[in-house]
Amino acid sequence: MVERRRLISVIGAGTADESLAAMARRVGALLARRGWGVVTGGLGGVMAAACQGASDQGGFTLGILPGMDPAAANPFCQVVIPTGMGQARNLLVVAAGAGAVAVGGAAGTLSEIGHALKAGKPVASLAGWQVAGVITAGDPEAAVGALLTALADSG
Amino acid sequence: MVERRRLISVIGAGTADESLAAMARRVGALLARRGWGVVTGGLGGVMAAACQGASDQGGFTLGILPGMDPAAANPFCQVVIPTGMGQARNLLVVAAGAGAVAVGGAAGTLSEIGHALKAGKPVASLAGWQVAGVITAGDPEAAVGALLTALADSG
Amino acid sequence: MVERRRLISVIGAGTADESLAAMARRVGALLARRGWGVVTGGLGGVMAAACQGASDQGGFTLGILPGMDPAAANPFCQVVIPTGMGQARNLLVVAAGAGAVAVGGAAGTLSEIGHALKAGKPVASLAGWQVAGVITAGDPEAAVGALLTALADSG
Amino acid sequence: MVERRRLISVIGAGTADESLAAMARRVGALLARRGWGVVTGGLGGVMAAACQGASDQGGFTLGILPGMDPAAANPFCQVVIPTGMGQARNLLVVAAGAGAVAVGGAAGTLSEIGHALKAGKPVASLAGWQVAGVITAGDPEAAVGALLTALADSG
Repeated sequence: MVERRRLISVIGAGTADESLAAMARRVGALLARRGWGVVTGGLGGVMAAACQGASDQGGFTLGILPGMDPAAANPFCQVVIPTGMGQARNLLVVAAGAGAVAVGGAAGTLSEIGHALKAGKPVASLAGWQVAGVITAGDPEAAVGALLTALADSG
Repeated sequence: MVERRRLISVIGAGTADESLAAMARRVGALLARRGWGVVTGGLGGVMAAACQGASDQGGFTLGILPGMDPAAANPFCQVVIPTGMGQARNLLVVAAGAGAVAVGGAAGTLSEIGHALKAGKPVASLAGWQVAGVITAGDPEAAVGALLTALADSG
Repeated sequence: MVERRRLISVIGAGTADESLAAMARRVGALLARRGWGVVTGGLGGVMAAACQGASDQGGFTLGILPGMDPAAANPFCQVVIPTGMGQARNLLVVAAGAGAVAVGGAAGTLSEIGHALKAGKPVASLAGWQVAGVITAGDPEAAVGALLTALADSG
Repeated sequence: MVERRRLISVIGAGTADESLAAMARRVGALLARRGWGVVTGGLGGVMAAACQGASDQGGFTLGILPGMDPAAANPFCQVVIPTGMGQARNLLVVAAGAGAVAVGGAAGTLSEIGHALKAGKPVASLAGWQVAGVITAGDPEAAVGALLTALADSG
């Protein structure tokens, strides 16, 4: 019997301005300090920032890539899964987490929010999509706090 | 060289009240009359109604199922693809169409809208999700009309 | 209630010499004459030849592509499903058929044979993989005959 | 920049007699001692044994499940990815590794061998499938040794 790592998905676009990147790093760091690993789509932008924030705090990071080349992963992923499945990897990113934090994001992130909600997982959203069923938060502390509370309540 | 069937995705929940079902049948019928086949997730509710509307007009219908058992398909699918891929089949449903019409719908439909927009396909929404990038329509005629216009413009 | 098309998967490589192409065309034609549609991976080589053979006999043809661009399909596919899922589309090709005929083929075909056998579907092999559980046939008539007999017995 | 874990896929059936299980544990242990993590399909039999062998040596273990319930994973997986994608997860298991060791195995394992070879990855086979392109080995030491040599040569 080994200790199983608990993961939260951090979802968002592959490019991010400094404001979004700072939020994503903070989300990753807060999750790591609370004992959660981070799973992302493994590329740049919000995904890289969340992994960086988590790994800076000694947290575990997993990247699930759309392509088959592991070299496409950002340098902050401890484990990389290349899938070659394109957008279908979006579903895997949210399937791997107990819940999700969206940081900004466009259509790909919307697909991930839909998949997470469909699977009954809580989703917190920062600076991005506000759709029914999602917890809208004003800053990383509120997003992570609300998500972990929702998980504790559902657990 | 054979004639290739053009398909539009009709997306929505596996259960539907009579109002939604009537809308979905009408969407299917209108698409068939305009020469388009219909692709859905192959189950009941909005999916079955859209296939029924299309096949009543002599249109082509394709169902892409989440499970591996073709017997789960509604009786109005001319071609059935069982996938065993669960929610990942949502991506396939929108990938198979040139554009999508959402009729009502919950989280699964939201994932399909996200995947369609990510792939650059036009999406019209009836009685359901109103998110950035989607054409909101008041009735089936408006939804189908706006979608086909968007396709013609992008083509 | 509409009539449902019955499909057989024809699997093999995207390039084929004239001998393999002739076998694949013949397999497609025989299936069409027996009332079966053909589903392939939608590209060239064995896939295109099987679709050509079937459509020349008025049969139905479905192509399930690894990429997202429907223009990559061979000209003999009546219905095209672009997936963007890369090799994962191999599973879909065999899931869509009641059984499979392999014509030649390399590693991708081997993955398809494995998926078909795992799903409990009969597989006939011509001029290619001979692995446990597969019906080895000497010519297209024998392959199609043995496959349809196996299907009738299991049905 | 974080240290990236290198993974080898260990593939085989969900049930295993003691002889196969002992081989799989040994494969997992040898990989861990050589600094490689182990990725499997996350269930029992060969998959559980390989994870157990690796984790007993302090190695990293990843399980990629066919279903959506993480509780289905064997107790030796440090990270679990539930996919809900059924057999399509077979592709992910081999995509996540730099190469694969097959221990026994039936049709599902054959699909994994096909996917690995298609992706250009070396595969060693113990007590199971002997197909073109696979390195057949007589014991775990030979299998792991030959696989790591093939990886070093291709790297």
